[in-house]
Amino acid sequence: MHCAIARSMAVLGERWTLVILRSAFMGARRFEDYQSSTGIARNILTDRLKTLVEHDILERRPYAEHPGRTLYEYRLTEKGLDLYPVLVSLMQWGNRYGGFDAPPVELEHKTCGHVTEARLVCAECGEELRAREVRAHAVPVVGAS
Amino acid sequence: MHCAIARSMAVLGERWTLVILRSAFMGARRFEDYQSSTGIARNILTDRLKTLVEHDILERRPYAEHPGRTLYEYRLTEKGLDLYPVLVSLMQWGNRYGGFDAPPVELEHKTCGHVTEARLVCAECGEELRAREVRAHAVPVVGAS
Repeated sequence: MHCAIARSMAVLGERWTLVILRSAFMGARRFEDYQSSTGIARNILTDRLKTLVEHDILERRPYAEHPGRTLYEYRLTEKGLDLYPVLVSLMQWGNRYGGFDAPPVELEHKTCGHVTEARLVCAECGEELRAREVRAHAVPVVGAS
Repeated sequence: MHCAIARSMAVLGERWTLVILRSAFMGARRFEDYQSSTGIARNILTDRLKTLVEHDILERRPYAEHPGRTLYEYRLTEKGLDLYPVLVSLMQWGNRYGGFDAPPVELEHKTCGHVTEARLVCAECGEELRAREVRAHAVPVVGAS
């Protein structure tokens, strides 16, 4: 399907995947970090981490050598870091509509020092980007002629 | 799980759901609009639309009466419209990493008239919000004591 969302969800469209990425953005590195922060069954977690490495969203790096065994950590690549707006937007929506008494997470912007919210704006004019004020144009695929 | 992303994905964590929402944001209303713009099998589409209505993301409204049959359309609610930042962020990531020769969709901001990109900024200082410059704090759950 010639659709950016369909292709993204072919990689991400599985509920645990985004929860694993959330842990990565919160600082998880080692298998045990991911396991304790998500509570996902170990075999499922192993499988999802492998998929994320195959898609170059996480990078698997050795961090310790034990006799007969190497330990690895899983860190976000640039492609993975570029998912940050997706995760933050999803978190804010979940904070609002997830049925929480109060939002479970707040964000501190270290650059300015404020507890803040993320806002989606137009890169051209800086105004907030609202669905009803945006027109999406399909760009025709140029075939090799 | 006391996690806004886990609760969001419990509703959205299925690859077709976000593709259906993309069609809604592109203007789909009727079952046939959704079917032709997504190519999803009719029984799966019926099921996913029902789930989105149950979660108050789409609203089902009658738009025509035929003898013995009412036709319905499916429109985004406010809760659904608030998913726009998620969809746009996912689209931009897919445009970049989906293996396209050129981005399949471009966004025109009607307010300013430019073809644009969406940018995630800090609501406090207006600077771009980058993963490495944000600290996420878990907010303790206050129990009834």
